[in-house]
Amino acid sequence: MSYRAPVEDIIATLRHVAGLDGLIAEGLAPELDGGLTDAVLEEAAKFAGDVIAPLNRVGDTHGSTLKDGVVTTPPGWKEAYKAWTEAGWNALPGPEIYGGQALPTLLQSACTEMWNSASLAFALGPLLTIGAIEAVHAHGSEHLKQTYLAKLVSGEWMGTMNLTEPQAGSDLNALRSRAERVGDGTYRITGQKIFITYGEHGMTENIIHLVLARLPDAPPGTRGISLFLVPKYLVNADGTLGAHNDLRCSGIEHKLGIHASPTCSMAYGDNGGAIGWLIGEENRGLACMFTMMNNARLNVALQGVAIAERAYQQALAFAGERRQGTALDAPKGSAMSPIIVHPDVRRMLMDMRAKTQAARAISYMVAAALDRSHRETDEARRKAASERAAILTPVAKAYATDIGIDVASTGVQIHGGMGFIEETGAAQHLRDARICTIYEGTNGIQAIDLVLRKLPLSGGNAVKALISEMRGVVGKVEGANTPGFGHSAARLKAAIDSLERATDWMLATMGARPGEALAGATPYLKLFALAQGGTGLARKALAMRAEENGAAAVATARFFAEHVVTEAPALELAVTEGAGAVEDADAVFAA
Amino acid sequence: MSYRAPVEDIIATLRHVAGLDGLIAEGLAPELDGGLTDAVLEEAAKFAGDVIAPLNRVGDTHGSTLKDGVVTTPPGWKEAYKAWTEAGWNALPGPEIYGGQALPTLLQSACTEMWNSASLAFALGPLLTIGAIEAVHAHGSEHLKQTYLAKLVSGEWMGTMNLTEPQAGSDLNALRSRAERVGDGTYRITGQKIFITYGEHGMTENIIHLVLARLPDAPPGTRGISLFLVPKYLVNADGTLGAHNDLRCSGIEHKLGIHASPTCSMAYGDNGGAIGWLIGEENRGLACMFTMMNNARLNVALQGVAIAERAYQQALAFAGERRQGTALDAPKGSAMSPIIVHPDVRRMLMDMRAKTQAARAISYMVAAALDRSHRETDEARRKAASERAAILTPVAKAYATDIGIDVASTGVQIHGGMGFIEETGAAQHLRDARICTIYEGTNGIQAIDLVLRKLPLSGGNAVKALISEMRGVVGKVEGANTPGFGHSAARLKAAIDSLERATDWMLATMGARPGEALAGATPYLKLFALAQGGTGLARKALAMRAEENGAAAVATARFFAEHVVTEAPALELAVTEGAGAVEDADAVFAA
Repeated sequence: MSYRAPVEDIIATLRHVAGLDGLIAEGLAPELDGGLTDAVLEEAAKFAGDVIAPLNRVGDTHGSTLKDGVVTTPPGWKEAYKAWTEAGWNALPGPEIYGGQALPTLLQSACTEMWNSASLAFALGPLLTIGAIEAVHAHGSEHLKQTYLAKLVSGEWMGTMNLTEPQAGSDLNALRSRAERVGDGTYRITGQKIFITYGEHGMTENIIHLVLARLPDAPPGTRGISLFLVPKYLVNADGTLGAHNDLRCSGIEHKLGIHASPTCSMAYGDNGGAIGWLIGEENRGLACMFTMMNNARLNVALQGVAIAERAYQQALAFAGERRQGTALDAPKGSAMSPIIVHPDVRRMLMDMRAKTQAARAISYMVAAALDRSHRETDEARRKAASERAAILTPVAKAYATDIGIDVASTGVQIHGGMGFIEETGAAQHLRDARICTIYEGTNGIQAIDLVLRKLPLSGGNAVKALISEMRGVVGKVEGANTPGFGHSAARLKAAIDSLERATDWMLATMGARPGEALAGATPYLKLFALAQGGTGLARKALAMRAEENGAAAVATARFFAEHVVTEAPALELAVTEGAGAVEDADAVFAA
Repeated sequence: MSYRAPVEDIIATLRHVAGLDGLIAEGLAPELDGGLTDAVLEEAAKFAGDVIAPLNRVGDTHGSTLKDGVVTTPPGWKEAYKAWTEAGWNALPGPEIYGGQALPTLLQSACTEMWNSASLAFALGPLLTIGAIEAVHAHGSEHLKQTYLAKLVSGEWMGTMNLTEPQAGSDLNALRSRAERVGDGTYRITGQKIFITYGEHGMTENIIHLVLARLPDAPPGTRGISLFLVPKYLVNADGTLGAHNDLRCSGIEHKLGIHASPTCSMAYGDNGGAIGWLIGEENRGLACMFTMMNNARLNVALQGVAIAERAYQQALAFAGERRQGTALDAPKGSAMSPIIVHPDVRRMLMDMRAKTQAARAISYMVAAALDRSHRETDEARRKAASERAAILTPVAKAYATDIGIDVASTGVQIHGGMGFIEETGAAQHLRDARICTIYEGTNGIQAIDLVLRKLPLSGGNAVKALISEMRGVVGKVEGANTPGFGHSAARLKAAIDSLERATDWMLATMGARPGEALAGATPYLKLFALAQGGTGLARKALAMRAEENGAAAVATARFFAEHVVTEAPALELAVTEGAGAVEDADAVFAA
């Protein structure tokens, strides 16, 4: 099943929801002046559709395999990666002095979506490299930067993140891997890591591992964790590769999805210790890790959008071809109609489309806020943008990945019996999507992050500013005199009212009764996403309604408001009056 | 991961929701008098947990394979089936004169749930045999009954249903398989069938295929379809097996889940035609098929309940063992707590539990109504029961299978990264569950069936009677003076109000504007299920609240009311004011 990047909606979302035009007009993205955005997106779309997308199914059926310590990626994988890096795509986000293009996150994000629609398993590797680049660039010594960054930026080498250990998943307090000071500025790393994405493979000549470990005299808990750079092959002073470091892949996982992405168990220090270099300060590894993580969460959100888009395209194509039954208004004895004429199938397709575009809207808003948080010249505006990015990141990550599963599952449903057959490809999207709600912080952790750490920013005013903007959109829908919006304004208004009341309840409750607040964290996050996504789609539709495809934008916004946003009052109740039912679980689990 | 049948909740649901006690008291289930129910369920629980459940993962990893026309089922499969039939479990539903026990559907259903929790792929085969027994018993000639029923009832032979062809899935109008009259009372069948569950295997000596085909002079469409019995091996007059019939398995599918259940492509008549016998009358095959189908839909509903129960048990056990983070009220420096202490994990577990039990409640209500539809002595009461079964069957099928996927997916989420690893087993439940919303009529078709064919029964009064019963339950919750119910009464009342308004809208709309009615069919069905399931759980909780585990029943009913039923008003809006947004899809799909 082919993939054609939805360049039109991507550009419309960048412009009308994420505010690309404003960014350029304010001089905050001078490199995008003069139509570069469209040109980059068209080229990326071509590469994603023509080169990567055809490998998605191959990657799923072959998977990556481990034999005698060697990981083999699927046929065509290495060649596609080489072509992709040679075309410069890996360098899009990298700093310019190391050969990168340092393009705005907004534009990068649109491309990230495309690579992941084409193949989640393929695009995942480079996302980890970006994280490694960011950590080394922000916290690494000059020596580390000079030795590693150019190769990582070009994609000649790939990077990994080594956090998880069997006993330490979400809770890094329990980390046990150890690092010993040698005295020459290097460290010796020992320990076992699991779930290391692209931990071993032959796609690049070297792999640069970023590894969390404890020094012998480190305090317990997360304040005693340091971050180390541990290359697969040591790098000589002249940049050539030296000896193999004391590390190996001890196993790869047999997973539900993303089969082509090797998920490795890594053993460090079988023979005395892998040689590592400290990144940042001793015992401050977690701060370095967080640098990588916020961006990574946005990228996982984009994976959710990406898989939903791919599943939608496949279901739409199938529904236009597969004939079963006849249309309600067809004359008796008519031949079978394509199933897209059936109201319930249309409803499902609209549901897929609207959720995908809403998740795209929220995710691109995060990207725009990140750009402003770096590029605004005014300190207060930088801070406001940074807080906005902080608030919307968990919302985007959790909502986009939740709907990724939801939309992919509806895609299977539209295929009927064929959807359950692996050769069709619809089921792969569901299997692949299933990881996104788990990694980079489970969606439950995103909800906790939103409620406990993000809502209180600027005393709650950062959230209130977003809510106030949402109300502005509703006002414009009300005044738009566009019948196609149907009941959108009323539904959005109800959702924003619910969000505001739930926000007030959260702000009042989290300090005194955190257990109650946390019982409602997940429904609160979803409520936030519905209001944010619904107003995002409405904003895009308002801007586009006079254009050629304006009616489609209005119809999509309307569907989301009338069929999805409607859940908002129920979510408010779950937040504000639902904690008791969660607490009563004592009676159940004690039984 | 082990499975222990939830005998306690099964019995409570049978008694307090499905009305088992009343059935017995009214003399309608004399065979269950004197504690037989408990004894049967305890034995079934033992067999399901000890013998079948351990095979579930083996079945998934080995799958069934096809080589040179021979299908091999996974190791242990044949032996378990033999033990299961020898213990008499296959004969539970069969007619007594053919060696069956003819136990009430209510009791059978509880057992069916258990077999399917233990292994969906295992239990699926015997479900098809039940369908074959019903069709032959209701419509077959005396010769067919004498030749086949005893062996099918004992399980010595298995049966299949052959409906689907590549061009004819949900739409049987397009069926092409042909049957020619030979003149000796037999027919020659030719054609290709796909998606035939347990179409070929070596678990039994013979396989009895029920095949839909057209006679040469048949009218087009579904009024020209006849049903034939086509055995794999012809049966001699003395009951021994004769020649292999002209049929073969031409392929088996590579599926997302239920790997152990061979899903076969069947070729009939490669060498002139398979010998078949007509079941019922010529061109009336569809009516015979419907006999099998209603019960089959209940059984698929029970599969949804079953997989949800298994996923819940696995997630609950994991959450009690896996340690990450510390409880909110734990002293600083405490060791990690089991994740079941975290409010969001508790919320997810309660969500799984409440949805599973609500789906069980609705499904068992269907079974009870089916029993009354056969066993009531009064004609009017039989009709009322039959209409109730007709209404609740699509509700149970669609809701239970939808939550089957939902609950299994939450189970994966609770496992975190481990949930994505196949060895854990959580992912298998999600993969297995995914078929249930598709086969035996997609859930979209269930919703259409509910709205177009079931709502109008007795001029809408059959539905209204159910709604009125639901109101009675709310009255009792209001008067119960049990604080543990929290806001349950208010939430249930709101849902029933929504259901009643949506029902009136549907009854008024389906004739004049069927397209609008069908656009809301799926949300309508879900709304129905929330009100029915919510009041079902409340009824059980009311009956149990003074018992030892009463608090758990009340807490579960409360969670469902406060966190799940709350969506009802949103669903009402989708039904009564959401059709426009679906119709506007024209602007989208034409673009």
